[in-house]
This record gives sequence, C-alpha cells and structure tokens, in this order.
Amino acid sequence: MNIKDIIKKSLELHKKTRGKIEIKPKVSLETAEDLALYYTPGVAEVCKKIVERPEAVNDYTNKKNSVAIITDGSAILGLGNIGPEAGLPVMEGKAAIFKRFANIDAYPILLNTQELEEIIKTIKNIAPTFSAINLEDIAAPGCFEIVKRLSKELDIPVFHDDQDGTAIVVLAGLINALKVVGKGKDVKILISGAGAAGIAIAKILGEYGMNNYCLCDSKGTISECRLELNGQKKTMMVKSAASCPCSNKCTDALPGTDVLIGVSKPNQFMKEDIKKMNPNAVVFALANPAPEIMPEEAKKGSAKIIATGRSDFPNQVNNALVFPGLFRGLLDSGIRKVTPEIKIAVAESIAGMIKNPTPENFIPSIFDKNLVKIISDAVKSAK
Amino acid sequence: MNIKDIIKKSLELHKKTRGKIEIKPKVSLETAEDLALYYTPGVAEVCKKIVERPEAVNDYTNKKNSVAIITDGSAILGLGNIGPEAGLPVMEGKAAIFKRFANIDAYPILLNTQELEEIIKTIKNIAPTFSAINLEDIAAPGCFEIVKRLSKELDIPVFHDDQDGTAIVVLAGLINALKVVGKGKDVKILISGAGAAGIAIAKILGEYGMNNYCLCDSKGTISECRLELNGQKKTMMVKSAASCPCSNKCTDALPGTDVLIGVSKPNQFMKEDIKKMNPNAVVFALANPAPEIMPEEAKKGSAKIIATGRSDFPNQVNNALVFPGLFRGLLDSGIRKVTPEIKIAVAESIAGMIKNPTPENFIPSIFDKNLVKIISDAVKSAK
Repeated sequence: MNIKDIIKKSLELHKKTRGKIEIKPKVSLETAEDLALYYTPGVAEVCKKIVERPEAVNDYTNKKNSVAIITDGSAILGLGNIGPEAGLPVMEGKAAIFKRFANIDAYPILLNTQELEEIIKTIKNIAPTFSAINLEDIAAPGCFEIVKRLSKELDIPVFHDDQDGTAIVVLAGLINALKVVGKGKDVKILISGAGAAGIAIAKILGEYGMNNYCLCDSKGTISECRLELNGQKKTMMVKSAASCPCSNKCTDALPGTDVLIGVSKPNQFMKEDIKKMNPNAVVFALANPAPEIMPEEAKKGSAKIIATGRSDFPNQVNNALVFPGLFRGLLDSGIRKVTPEIKIAVAESIAGMIKNPTPENFIPSIFDKNLVKIISDAVKSAK
Repeated sequence: MNIKDIIKKSLELHKKTRGKIEIKPKVSLETAEDLALYYTPGVAEVCKKIVERPEAVNDYTNKKNSVAIITDGSAILGLGNIGPEAGLPVMEGKAAIFKRFANIDAYPILLNTQELEEIIKTIKNIAPTFSAINLEDIAAPGCFEIVKRLSKELDIPVFHDDQDGTAIVVLAGLINALKVVGKGKDVKILISGAGAAGIAIAKILGEYGMNNYCLCDSKGTISECRLELNGQKKTMMVKSAASCPCSNKCTDALPGTDVLIGVSKPNQFMKEDIKKMNPNAVVFALANPAPEIMPEEAKKGSAKIIATGRSDFPNQVNNALVFPGLFRGLLDSGIRKVTPEIKIAVAESIAGMIKNPTPENFIPSIFDKNLVKIISDAVKSAK
C-alpha cells in the first residue's frame, strides 16, 4: 500500500470506528445478583478491605495494570505543537498497542496546559488512578524537568516515551547495525535533532560507552560556537568526546561520520549528503510520519543500513517495540525507577533477539511473539 | 443470597478478575499494514484533520463517547471520607454500568487532593480528554461549589451523581409512590441527611412543587433553632414551606410526616419511629451499603411503600437507574448544562414507565431494556 492509499484508508477507518479504544467491563452485569456483587451492597466490603490495607487496591481493582498516557500536545510526532486534542489519535494508538501487545490498560490523558508547574501538579493530582505514567509527545526542554520532578515526587515509575523509549530502541538497533558493518563503539555519530529524543539518545549512547557523537538542531551543529547554549544541549555537548564543527548546517557534520540518527523533521537530508559519510554508513531516519530521508534515497547515497520509524518500511526502529514490554516488566515487578541499567539491559535484550543481523533484518518485529516477554524479563533482571 | 454470602462472594470475584474494567482496542492490530493505518504513518493525517478543524476530534477519536468518573474519596457510599483509592471499586462499578447499559466509555479518575481550588483546577486541566464529567462521592458542601464553578468554566456537562442522579431517581420513585397511596404534592416529607444528596433532593422537590419538606442531619433537624447554619442547608430551610420542629433528634420530625427519604447512614430508624408517621407512609431508605432501616423493619412499622438503594432488595431507587441514560442523552445531543427542566423531564420519563404502580412495583428495573432510551430521549426533548 502506498502512502496516499494509507492516508485515505487511515482516515476512513478512524472515522468508521470513531477512534481506537473503548472501556469494557471484565465482569458480567446481567442479573440483580451481579449488581449486588459488583455494585451495591457487595462493593462496600471491597472498599473496606482497601481502607484496612491500602495495598489491597492492587488485588481488588484494575489499578495494578493501569497506565496513564499523558500529553500536553506540545510535540506530537514530527508535527510540532498542535495541541493535545489533535494528538489524541496518537495517544489512542499507543493505548491500543499497550493492550494488544502487553495486555496493559493504558488511558490517554490530554492536558489543558503547557505550563511546567501546572503539568507536574496535575499529574500528581491524578496519579492515584495509575501504577505507572507514560509521558508522550511533550516538548523539550520542559519534558526533562517534568520527568525529573515527577520521578522524585511520585512513588510510581515515570517514563517519557519520546526520550527513553526512542533512546532504547535506537541503541538496540545500533548494537546490531554495527555488528553488520563490523564497526565498534568508537564510531562517529551524528544525531540530527536535539529535542527530547536527541538528548536522550546522546545520553544512552554515552552511558553505553559511545561518546563520539555530535548533535545538531534547527540552528545548526551543537558546537562551541553556539554561545547561547545552555541546559541539556550544552551538557551533552560537553560530555561528548567528538569535536563537532561549527556550522549552521547540520550536513556540514556528515563528512567522516559513520552513523546518522535522525529524530528531527521530515526531509532534512539528500542522497548527496549521505555520500559524504564514511563507507558502510548507518542511517536511522526516524522522524514521523515522514523520515529525514526516504530509504531509497539513502540507499542511493550508499548507506549500508537503513531504518525508519514507520510500520510500512522494513527495519522499524520505533519506540512501540519497547514500551509494551518495558511497562509489562515495570508493572509486574513493582520497579519504581527506570535506571540507565534497565534501559541498557532492555536495548541489549532486543538486539539479542536477532542472532545473525543483516542489513535487511537487524531489529525484531513488533509482532515477534517473544518480544514483550524478553523485554519484561530484562527489566526484572536489571532491577 | 444473603448479605453474608454476597460479601464473601463479592470479595472473591473482585480478586479473581482484579477489578471490573479494562481498556480494549476497537480495531485489529495484527499486521504491519494495520499499524501503518492506525499508528505511524497513517495516524499523522488524522492528527492534521483535527488541527484543520478541531471538532473533527469527535469524528476520528473516542472523545465523543468518553466520560470521566472523578472522585476525591471524601464521601464514598455511606462509608465516609475513606480516600480515593478505597473508592476505586465503586468507580470501576460505575464505569462497568456505563458501558453495559449505555455503551459509554467512562474512566475513573482518583484525585490526590481534597482541596477545592486544586480539585477544580485539576479537572479543568484534564478536561480535553472527555465529553462529560461525572463527579462521584465528593462530600458536601465542597461539591456544590465544585459543580457550580466547573459548570461555568468548562464547556462540557458536569454532573454530580450523588446530587442530581439521586435527586432524579428519588423524584421518579416519589411520583409513582404518591400515586399508589393517593396523596398529592402537599405531602409532608422528611429528608434524613443534608449532604450532597439531601440538599439536591430538597432542591428538585421544590422545583417540582413539593415544598413541604424538612431536612435533618447528624445534629438534628434543620430548623430555625440551628443558629450556626449557613450555606445550602440554610437556603433549603428558608425555601421550605414546612415548619420543622427544633430537635437534636431527627425522629422528632416524623410525627405527621407522609414520606421519609433517607440519604444518610445505616440504621438511623426503628419500626417504632416509622409508626409515628401518617398512615400510608412512604419510606425510601437509600443509604448504601446498609439502609437507614431494613425493609422488613419498615414494614413492621406499617410503611406502605418501601424502597432501598440496593440491588438485592425489590424497588431499587438508585442513581444507577439514571446516569447511563442521562449521559447517553447528553453525549448524543451535545447539551452542555443539566438544567432543572432536564432533571424533572428525566424523573417523569422514568416514573412514566410504570403504568400501574403498586407497592411492589413502582420503579423500573435497571435491566428494563427501554430505560436508557426513554431517559436519553427525555434529555433530548427537554433540551
């Protein structure tokens, strides 16, 4: 199916079903006895059990399996700050994926504010409903502070999918891609995009021992010439072992680079740009819905390994591979913090699923029946 | 099944299923094409449609059918301020009833605050997810201000089930009960309980032209001797046409009373108290899980008509009869305010379903297949 047909059919299907999720009873409500058992008077005893022993809420309700998918709509896919309601189709998609692949009950919460303190307070105020928080499509740099504060102030795990989910799946893909091209941890890497995903990727690469990276954003390379820099962008630049050229064009950093990771916007590179990279180049063009460069163009530019974030191209490097299994592991084990050790263990577990990686097959499919269990086991072991 | 068996089995069943609701995909996610259509890249076009035309969120997502069931846990059933998590079994029960009877997708939100301004702000901040708000088990007097403010500040309907749901079903039951005993709107009524439900019942009775009511609370009758009174309790006392005796005992208001409506706490009255009422007395003992007086006791006290809120006794006067159909009507019609006209129309529509009311049968069952449609039609007509 080509992209035009996908768009047409996608709109038709969304309209036909009016969205993608629904809330269903797990129990039968067909008789007065059913109501007496599940509603009044029976339900009062269940309430009393939780009063006696607060943790009993995990035994008698669905809380233990409940996750919030929360967005303020400030960075929806590669579409930008389009607001929470326009982001709802993405959130419903995540919720459907959570249930289909990991049997997790995830519910979209759209925030009517993009103010940092308001967001933090609101999430804390609705937290008792949930056993984990999945932040989604919240723009940098606010997202960094939100995750940091909530992780400290809540006693349930808080995960920002655009940061950690993307970083984990990129590392998983990269581990295998480098095996294919026979290169090591000292490869030179350019990360196009220094938002939530770009920063998180730089972090996890550093934690994994791959410090030879440059970042760039819409103003050019993140280099010492950028005197205005502060916050996470500056931190990641300082931590990098690479010397990033001064330029207002991202492409100027491509010569001598082994790996290009795009988490920015559609159509940022042309085949001529890719040709400037080292031989056996690896290109992950992950912007959604349209990648930084189309796979056929990258191939013409002589990239050896190509991945996108999309479901209709081969080699999908998408956080949807990660979050179902990762949350399954978090919920089942009661882990409260997603540490760097857990993230790396999950990335390695995903990479390990492909025994003999090739350019055509170096990352498992989301439909691999073992994926969720392998990831959730990795979470539990890394605990 | 007796109450002991109900309690035992209710606990077992809740534990077995770990609660009562789950979130399910409405669409198939079995192939890469499915993911391309419902997730990336297809979903981006759906987002763009909503950017172009914000109301399209109602066509392409589940928002149009989504309701929040929100509680701060301050007045759960007749159990009091037991906190939001201990109230979750009730909220999940409501959600299950919403879906089973009216195909509405309702989701419980537990608030981690009981502070008025915080509650209002938090609900406003998560409102974009929902097309209607059902407040649940929030204590008086805070609930009055919360409903008032949210109704003004949000553009979706805000309904407090403990107030309006209870008031509507009580009026419905009373219309038919008075037909059975051959009495008119001038009956003398005692409302035991002056919380959210009691105040709302007094209001709807007044709006319906039944002004001859007294209220009482845990300190006694709401009368002129209560110099400390203010707020809604005082307002309803002033509006009443009855002269309520001064007493610290609710039962002192029973002599000469035709109707007793209990929305307070278990075991408030004995058969001797009911005997003081006028002949052909009507007793609605609606506290949950245990009524103000058990039906057999009320009967011994010579009550002619007896109802409770429970599913295991006949004549269930419970707001569960009202909210599924009422919200169905609100969501389908796009009505933004639940006016007194709508409430009375709904009560009359429910009463009208029983053509020849008798002491044994004067209120329809929640399982009556026409109930939801008749109520939702009444909402739309009263618009």
